[in-house]
Amino acid sequence: MDIAPPRSRQQRKADTLARFEHGEDAWVASADANGEAYITPLSYVWDGATFVMSTVEASLTGRNLAARGRVRFAIGETRDVIIVEGTMETFTLATVPTDLADAFAAKLWDARRDPEPPAYFRVTPRRIQAWREVNELTGRLLMRDGAWLV
Amino acid sequence: MDIAPPRSRQQRKADTLARFEHGEDAWVASADANGEAYITPLSYVWDGATFVMSTVEASLTGRNLAARGRVRFAIGETRDVIIVEGTMETFTLATVPTDLADAFAAKLWDARRDPEPPAYFRVTPRRIQAWREVNELTGRLLMRDGAWLV
Repeated sequence: MDIAPPRSRQQRKADTLARFEHGEDAWVASADANGEAYITPLSYVWDGATFVMSTVEASLTGRNLAARGRVRFAIGETRDVIIVEGTMETFTLATVPTDLADAFAAKLWDARRDPEPPAYFRVTPRRIQAWREVNELTGRLLMRDGAWLV
Repeated sequence: MDIAPPRSRQQRKADTLARFEHGEDAWVASADANGEAYITPLSYVWDGATFVMSTVEASLTGRNLAARGRVRFAIGETRDVIIVEGTMETFTLATVPTDLADAFAAKLWDARRDPEPPAYFRVTPRRIQAWREVNELTGRLLMRDGAWLV
């Protein structure tokens, strides 16, 4: 299989921001109190600085995430990887800021109307990696400690 | 956006087995000793009953997985989800069965020749879920306790 030449880190940052803006779904990792790891797809909205996600508050993923202040998720495909690590705030129906729930509803759906109460998660990225094939493993770190490196 | 009608569970099983056979990459969840969850793409080989994966033994994912006897991973896309939970055996360069490493090498690459020693993981699926959109959430469980339900 032919492998494309590696992108510059500037190009990766541009591609990454476009994916944040136009993509909808992330693969979110979480772990329960016993350290068992789970993976689930969650939709997101990116506002230019933070991600908002939502899931059923009482679900396994909802409970796992609410118990933590950090999260890691992947966006894209396995040969076009973006991995985001971020700090995370959790909101319930009672505590979610209206503008946050409105922004989620505007792009996705109004989870406030779901039959089961949602939790909302606001994620501030602290570390971002992006790579396609092995020839992009060098230079895959785009953000560290919340600061873009490019 | 138009949503296709839900597939039958028989069709989902057929689609799932085709993906196992022809796909190459999975999103693998793992957690460290502190219960922090991670996600990483790993390549796999499916032999009709088990998956074989490999990563660098000393990597974060390699160490996280080796410390556990179960694993969960996703195959496919966020709107064409297959989630597999399985029991897992871990092998090192010293313990990996030759036929297992040969099968991995035949489809992917010979990790035994990698500069950093690999770990191999043999996963026996115990639970499989498959769905595309929300209209397929019902009936998404295809395997439970290692037995196909369809």
